[in-house]
Amino acid sequence: MKIAKHVSKLSSYVPGEQPSSTKVIKLNTNENPYPPSPQCAKVLKTFAAGKLRLYPDPESTKLRKAIAEICNAREECVFVGNGSDEILALVARAFVEDNEAIGSLNPSYSLYKTIAAIRNVQWRGIATLGESLAPKKKGESPISLFLLTNPNAPTGEWREMSEIAAFAKKFPGVVLVDEAYADFARGNSMEIATARGNNNVIVMRTLSKSYSLAGLRVGYCIGPEKLISALYKIKDSYNIDAIAQAVALAAVTDQKWMKKNAQRVIATRKRFTAELVKRGWDVIPSESNFVFAKPPAGNKAEDVFKALKKDGIFVRYFNGPKTKDRLRITIGTDSQMKKLIHATEKLILR
Amino acid sequence: MKIAKHVSKLSSYVPGEQPSSTKVIKLNTNENPYPPSPQCAKVLKTFAAGKLRLYPDPESTKLRKAIAEICNAREECVFVGNGSDEILALVARAFVEDNEAIGSLNPSYSLYKTIAAIRNVQWRGIATLGESLAPKKKGESPISLFLLTNPNAPTGEWREMSEIAAFAKKFPGVVLVDEAYADFARGNSMEIATARGNNNVIVMRTLSKSYSLAGLRVGYCIGPEKLISALYKIKDSYNIDAIAQAVALAAVTDQKWMKKNAQRVIATRKRFTAELVKRGWDVIPSESNFVFAKPPAGNKAEDVFKALKKDGIFVRYFNGPKTKDRLRITIGTDSQMKKLIHATEKLILR
Repeated sequence: MKIAKHVSKLSSYVPGEQPSSTKVIKLNTNENPYPPSPQCAKVLKTFAAGKLRLYPDPESTKLRKAIAEICNAREECVFVGNGSDEILALVARAFVEDNEAIGSLNPSYSLYKTIAAIRNVQWRGIATLGESLAPKKKGESPISLFLLTNPNAPTGEWREMSEIAAFAKKFPGVVLVDEAYADFARGNSMEIATARGNNNVIVMRTLSKSYSLAGLRVGYCIGPEKLISALYKIKDSYNIDAIAQAVALAAVTDQKWMKKNAQRVIATRKRFTAELVKRGWDVIPSESNFVFAKPPAGNKAEDVFKALKKDGIFVRYFNGPKTKDRLRITIGTDSQMKKLIHATEKLILR
Repeated sequence: MKIAKHVSKLSSYVPGEQPSSTKVIKLNTNENPYPPSPQCAKVLKTFAAGKLRLYPDPESTKLRKAIAEICNAREECVFVGNGSDEILALVARAFVEDNEAIGSLNPSYSLYKTIAAIRNVQWRGIATLGESLAPKKKGESPISLFLLTNPNAPTGEWREMSEIAAFAKKFPGVVLVDEAYADFARGNSMEIATARGNNNVIVMRTLSKSYSLAGLRVGYCIGPEKLISALYKIKDSYNIDAIAQAVALAAVTDQKWMKKNAQRVIATRKRFTAELVKRGWDVIPSESNFVFAKPPAGNKAEDVFKALKKDGIFVRYFNGPKTKDRLRITIGTDSQMKKLIHATEKLILR
């Protein structure tokens, strides 16, 4: 057999659909409805293409420094990755032995299971952070890496820093707090990552959501220098291209732009949530740029998902035991959300 | 212990130095002295930055199609990676079990050893393709993936397709032919990869060298659909950003530009080799964009390396038992090579 066994039997992660039509109202992959900072466009327009003949900075030094400053961290404690995706793949290799397992909340970001499967280790989910992580059955491996999305996806629920700190204190391995959506939340846990004496918490952020740069593939994480340098040891030699380094630097430097857009999304989320609730939907209070909502009784989430798709409105449906009753709806512009509400008026039985 | 054992004891791969001064004559990382196609600059200037808020095509479809056409392969047989680096990391996971090993020629691209160490498997080198790959000592694992650089680095030596085909036919695992430098050689082995009935040969190319796009991070590989789809299963969800996909597409579409620059490099290589030989250097005939050259008797390669560096001329020195007597010198412009020759005139004892 030429393909490794665990790869042969692996099912790929299925990302949300990227329709080629621009007429679709795309509320299925938590993209930001607003464009990135105008500084990004300027970087692209003025980038000296001739420089591309040279290798990029393998450590993204300027970008790393800028992120360190924004997050109040030491530069040595910052790792920049080709999207959070790369960071997830790297932590699964750096902090998990072959006979250990990866844990996360359940439900949570569905990619985590795939990350564990690619790494060829077990994955186990828990419903609350209070639940025991210890192996329960024979053959279960101890969990050495916990991937904790906060706010959680697809639920949108948010946990206080104190709850996360208490969890990490008891956990013997590495806790990666995936803060992809933190800029849409009322707080974050960065202070745990940058605290003196922290030896097992890494906080991860992405430029895909709040910075409107999903197309660029830049994520970063911050944690103890010892753990961060382990990631640098196993990354691809040049993981971020020269253009992406420059565009990302422009984006993180323009904090005002990002924050203004995040505020607009939060305001729309509040209005949209109220509209859904008014119409009999059950909406989990969200601290993110999406809501996880259950249609009024008598309507199956999957049917609503399909009907909306026919109407050219894409949302996300996860067909799992804990997720099948709800739709994950990205917060777009006010006008997009009105169109969605309007479309559901015709569909929903009340 | 929070860091996996094999990562703790790992030494990072050390890429060639990227000096910040632009005054340096940089002949140490096999970069192309000529700029990429003007079409790349045009793509950057006209790229709609607003589109970056959306995720990129996860499968780089347009680029994949263009590469398939150029290489006379089916689209399903093409994988596009975040540089060849990503492809190397992926093949090490897709085609090697935990108790198997990675093989390559020795000397060859020094990154391969690091790739094996990161994957936590053994690496073994052979001096010629005729040598047995079978485990010789107790505890040695069978080799299931062979990384074959052709032309080889750092030697510049080239092997005929027939020799590679014969080797692959006998080899029970996957052979990845790393053709990073093939555009500077008199031939290549792509026909093995695209042949009907091929079930274990993958040919890999990069845009870093002949396309003058080291700063962009795009590589690709072509092989049997079954092996290629294994790579798609374990890659990061969105491995190539939207800008890189567009710039790479512009570059591969402009074959004429790439070939013209490759011809210029080949012509300079011939002239430079003749100049070195005239001055008593031993130069291995190179089919690449560098030469691996031994200074005249009485001169230590390492001393020449250091003296050139002092003069602002960077070349590469590999301090290993099979490499320590030579310097790997990238082919730059004719003017740069003249300056290097001039600098050695003062240094070299004859």
